[in-house]
Amino acid sequence: MWMCAGFTMLESGSVRTKNASVICLKNIGLYAIAGLAYYAIGYNLMYVDVESWIGSFTFSYGPSAQEIALLRGDASMEKTVVENGYAVMSDWFFQMVFVATTASIVSGTLAERVKLWSFFLFTLFLTAFIYPVIGAWTWGDGWLNQMGFQDFAGSTIVHSTGGWAALAGALVVGPRLRKFRADGTVKPTPPSNVPAVTLGVFILWLGWFGFNGGSQLALSGVADAVAVSIILVNTNLAAAAGVMAAISVSRPILGRYDLFAGLNGAIAGLVSITAGPDIVEHHWAIIIGAAGGVLCTAGIRLLEVLKIDDVVGAIPAHLVAGIWGTLAVCIAAGGNVGDQLTGILAVGAFVFVTSWVLWLIIDATIKARVSPHVEELGQDVAELGIEAYPEFLVIPDPDDVNDLKLKK
Amino acid sequence: MWMCAGFTMLESGSVRTKNASVICLKNIGLYAIAGLAYYAIGYNLMYVDVESWIGSFTFSYGPSAQEIALLRGDASMEKTVVENGYAVMSDWFFQMVFVATTASIVSGTLAERVKLWSFFLFTLFLTAFIYPVIGAWTWGDGWLNQMGFQDFAGSTIVHSTGGWAALAGALVVGPRLRKFRADGTVKPTPPSNVPAVTLGVFILWLGWFGFNGGSQLALSGVADAVAVSIILVNTNLAAAAGVMAAISVSRPILGRYDLFAGLNGAIAGLVSITAGPDIVEHHWAIIIGAAGGVLCTAGIRLLEVLKIDDVVGAIPAHLVAGIWGTLAVCIAAGGNVGDQLTGILAVGAFVFVTSWVLWLIIDATIKARVSPHVEELGQDVAELGIEAYPEFLVIPDPDDVNDLKLKK
Amino acid sequence: MWMCAGFTMLESGSVRTKNASVICLKNIGLYAIAGLAYYAIGYNLMYVDVESWIGSFTFSYGPSAQEIALLRGDASMEKTVVENGYAVMSDWFFQMVFVATTASIVSGTLAERVKLWSFFLFTLFLTAFIYPVIGAWTWGDGWLNQMGFQDFAGSTIVHSTGGWAALAGALVVGPRLRKFRADGTVKPTPPSNVPAVTLGVFILWLGWFGFNGGSQLALSGVADAVAVSIILVNTNLAAAAGVMAAISVSRPILGRYDLFAGLNGAIAGLVSITAGPDIVEHHWAIIIGAAGGVLCTAGIRLLEVLKIDDVVGAIPAHLVAGIWGTLAVCIAAGGNVGDQLTGILAVGAFVFVTSWVLWLIIDATIKARVSPHVEELGQDVAELGIEAYPEFLVIPDPDDVNDLKLKK
Repeated sequence: MWMCAGFTMLESGSVRTKNASVICLKNIGLYAIAGLAYYAIGYNLMYVDVESWIGSFTFSYGPSAQEIALLRGDASMEKTVVENGYAVMSDWFFQMVFVATTASIVSGTLAERVKLWSFFLFTLFLTAFIYPVIGAWTWGDGWLNQMGFQDFAGSTIVHSTGGWAALAGALVVGPRLRKFRADGTVKPTPPSNVPAVTLGVFILWLGWFGFNGGSQLALSGVADAVAVSIILVNTNLAAAAGVMAAISVSRPILGRYDLFAGLNGAIAGLVSITAGPDIVEHHWAIIIGAAGGVLCTAGIRLLEVLKIDDVVGAIPAHLVAGIWGTLAVCIAAGGNVGDQLTGILAVGAFVFVTSWVLWLIIDATIKARVSPHVEELGQDVAELGIEAYPEFLVIPDPDDVNDLKLKK
Repeated sequence: MWMCAGFTMLESGSVRTKNASVICLKNIGLYAIAGLAYYAIGYNLMYVDVESWIGSFTFSYGPSAQEIALLRGDASMEKTVVENGYAVMSDWFFQMVFVATTASIVSGTLAERVKLWSFFLFTLFLTAFIYPVIGAWTWGDGWLNQMGFQDFAGSTIVHSTGGWAALAGALVVGPRLRKFRADGTVKPTPPSNVPAVTLGVFILWLGWFGFNGGSQLALSGVADAVAVSIILVNTNLAAAAGVMAAISVSRPILGRYDLFAGLNGAIAGLVSITAGPDIVEHHWAIIIGAAGGVLCTAGIRLLEVLKIDDVVGAIPAHLVAGIWGTLAVCIAAGGNVGDQLTGILAVGAFVFVTSWVLWLIIDATIKARVSPHVEELGQDVAELGIEAYPEFLVIPDPDDVNDLKLKK
Repeated sequence: MWMCAGFTMLESGSVRTKNASVICLKNIGLYAIAGLAYYAIGYNLMYVDVESWIGSFTFSYGPSAQEIALLRGDASMEKTVVENGYAVMSDWFFQMVFVATTASIVSGTLAERVKLWSFFLFTLFLTAFIYPVIGAWTWGDGWLNQMGFQDFAGSTIVHSTGGWAALAGALVVGPRLRKFRADGTVKPTPPSNVPAVTLGVFILWLGWFGFNGGSQLALSGVADAVAVSIILVNTNLAAAAGVMAAISVSRPILGRYDLFAGLNGAIAGLVSITAGPDIVEHHWAIIIGAAGGVLCTAGIRLLEVLKIDDVVGAIPAHLVAGIWGTLAVCIAAGGNVGDQLTGILAVGAFVFVTSWVLWLIIDATIKARVSPHVEELGQDVAELGIEAYPEFLVIPDPDDVNDLKLKK
């Protein structure tokens, strides 16, 4: 759940000051919604009685009957519970963090313009339905898993899912006002707090050790301990390589040594290795992470060219690197490229189309996006009534000032 | 100890900019004082030779004789140590975080006006004496425990204790200057840094998993692992429900969808479930947490009506929710309501009265509160000489400016 | 790796606003460089085939052959792996955090004036070569270890190494412009964000539990669990005593109760106990930590007198307290003072001389320090193009303003 704190810091530091409180509310809200929705519906759809496509639609669940018997003192159940490999509810907890991560990716991309309650509504569907279906196909032992699709801790299942949902949202919601100017230039939108962004990335980096290390679900024997140590080292090497590769290529691609490219490079390196930190050799982890950092930096530029507005660079860092990582594992550890491609395309098609339709429905009913007036004033003042740093004197955006004056 | 970092962020973000450094010093100081006082006196009062009311007054202590023998290579001691269930000093460490939490609650309520050294003096007594007495009654196997009072990880023992001490302090110290205006309105006091408050809540949420999960003290067998997984899920569900319930009712109660209500709702949900995360079913965790969030939001309004000034809303989040949680466990899991009420009232009476007397003595001797002049200038400049954000241009409070001018 | 996040917050909050983004980039970059360099070269120099002075110069490495066999299902290897005490790669991971810590110490001391790429180059040598040689002498079972030098978790090996490297850098790079005025006074350089510094210290404090607790490398039996509990309590008591001692003596030494002295006191207490948290008794931990806090505060003043500019006080907190701790363990637990002194002097001589030569070479080639113009503008704008808090109105330093005006 620490991941969610990382995303909150990253996003609240990346948005402009006038929207920094709302992004905090979005993040604490999405974590609450994800926890409740995944408990009430999602987990069953993902794990219970999955045949190929989807599990059962039942409300809520709990520890297994054997576990309850064990807690009540029936020691004979101990062996059965151990053979299951892990406690049912510890698995739920772990998966709940994954599902919240997908929603955090969306909130980062759509920051500064998506309506609070529209975002919450989308989060509800994403965490109760869209992610659990993908999860059922894979970790729930549905058709992709049976086919042989490999994704250790979710390069595709978690990060690409979030990335596709964010991309669909970015297309429907559209870019921020005047972000892409008529003359083809891109308007700079200063981050409110760079050290907060950096802290967020460190928190995510740390959280990933839990993410990837914890995916080696049973930490019971010596072999598992050795496996976890290899996973942690691969995770760290990929992130480090992602940082340095992204900083190095930021000069030719973006025109300057760029801190944000480096920070996104860390995340891209982490996402890239997530598909197989347990099976690649250490030097491959460095190569995979470095390539992830380069692709992410290139992706930031590509989105600018395509006039797709992604406030924190979540699409390059999670979707582009997620696709790369899912393929790279296969190359590095000798998997089946066809299976991996099938998985990538199937997840992409399902998540993008359902998300896109959902965003269109939201936009047609309660509106996906705030009014231009709210966007200029900032969501903090206009939607929430609480500024993020109310006592600091802030330099206003001249575009907004002119526009607000004209309206008067 | 991570909890203390959470409180520091929450409180330093919630106070006005002019008091943000002092609150940092108060928090690092209280953690240091709590650690030393609880080591020197508190632990023995709480655990050693408790009959009914209080343990022994001895200075310092250490690992058990058996543990020392084991460390010196006497392998025959291993069995004895295991039978104790946990290492003596790991229990001390755990309890020390609890005792620091009670002091953090007080520092949040009394921020922006309580004197630095008066607060430190109160902290010394709270952590060396008041909390350990409550602890002796309960976890030290004193009269409340023998009666059957249930409080798994401290809804009453930790959070209400802190809340009662804070309430006594708020009554003696009084509200901030002009907080409650003559015309009955409440003066808004803008938080200095909203993302920091949000980060603080995430840190506390995460720390609670250690708090509640770790209270299942022996993590040695399969049954314990299953129990911890259930505790973590209940803890998370209660917090999530607290967030959403508090945000939902903030509109009717406070007049707007309120981020702070949501953040306090998370804490209230966590406090509420703390009395019994091990014994309630998951759907009960949601109900208990949601009700905690609602009661906390109502409590924020109630304190305004009563003209009690609680800067961070610690009394609603810890005291109100703590009382609720201690009763709710009983309802949800079938305990004895009478025992729970007795515990709540006994703890409340003892902590409130001793704290109130202590604050009166402090106020009569070294003063509990800074002078109006210091309060207007801000404690950072006047008491400490270090501003929190010295290079940022801050919008001053017009009331303070006028008043300071008049004095000249 | 959490330590690195702590240093980043501490340093980004301690520098002036105009340099806060660059220090973030330095910290994420140093962590990446340390991870890659220590993987590629450092670990082998430190651990593989060490005779007395240095290990083997080989590129990269990985899990042991026995571990790989175990992962492939050869269960007969389990016993061999267990007898090694820990997984090879988990040890690498742990050591990598140590090596990054030494570089973080340097970045704190030299902040606000050292060139980005010069610092990265120094970091590369420090983490690939200087630290690993010290490590080979001690933890790699080289001559100091064989002599009997005791340093449990690196008071000398990690913290003094970082401190000596920082001191050499401070002498070559020189103080910030106008820091030491002609009239003998010291120019105040306001920290940009005090709550961030406080958060950083809490993060480090927490990270130290992993540092010291994790140095009890095998957490497998009851005796180890007891040992870890004692280590954690000693670590916490020393830090708490360091805080209170440093705050108390800050009034006579620095002229005011000083938050920064208290925060540095926490770190000094932690560094002091690091040489022997496993072998000293609890009351000794308090004494050692308190003395560390006093020495650190005195060290802050001493550096001012010597006109050595250490932005975050890293030299007093890590070097002075590191030397003290390495000796104190010996006094408290009955070691050989001569061995300890030999270790302190040998490490100091090697690290200071190699670092000093390296900084001279860097300065003679690519320059160690930014130009006065860049220093006045701030490294964020001049070197990186991204300000840390671009929307906040900042009060400029009048010296810089005058100087920049004169140049025009």
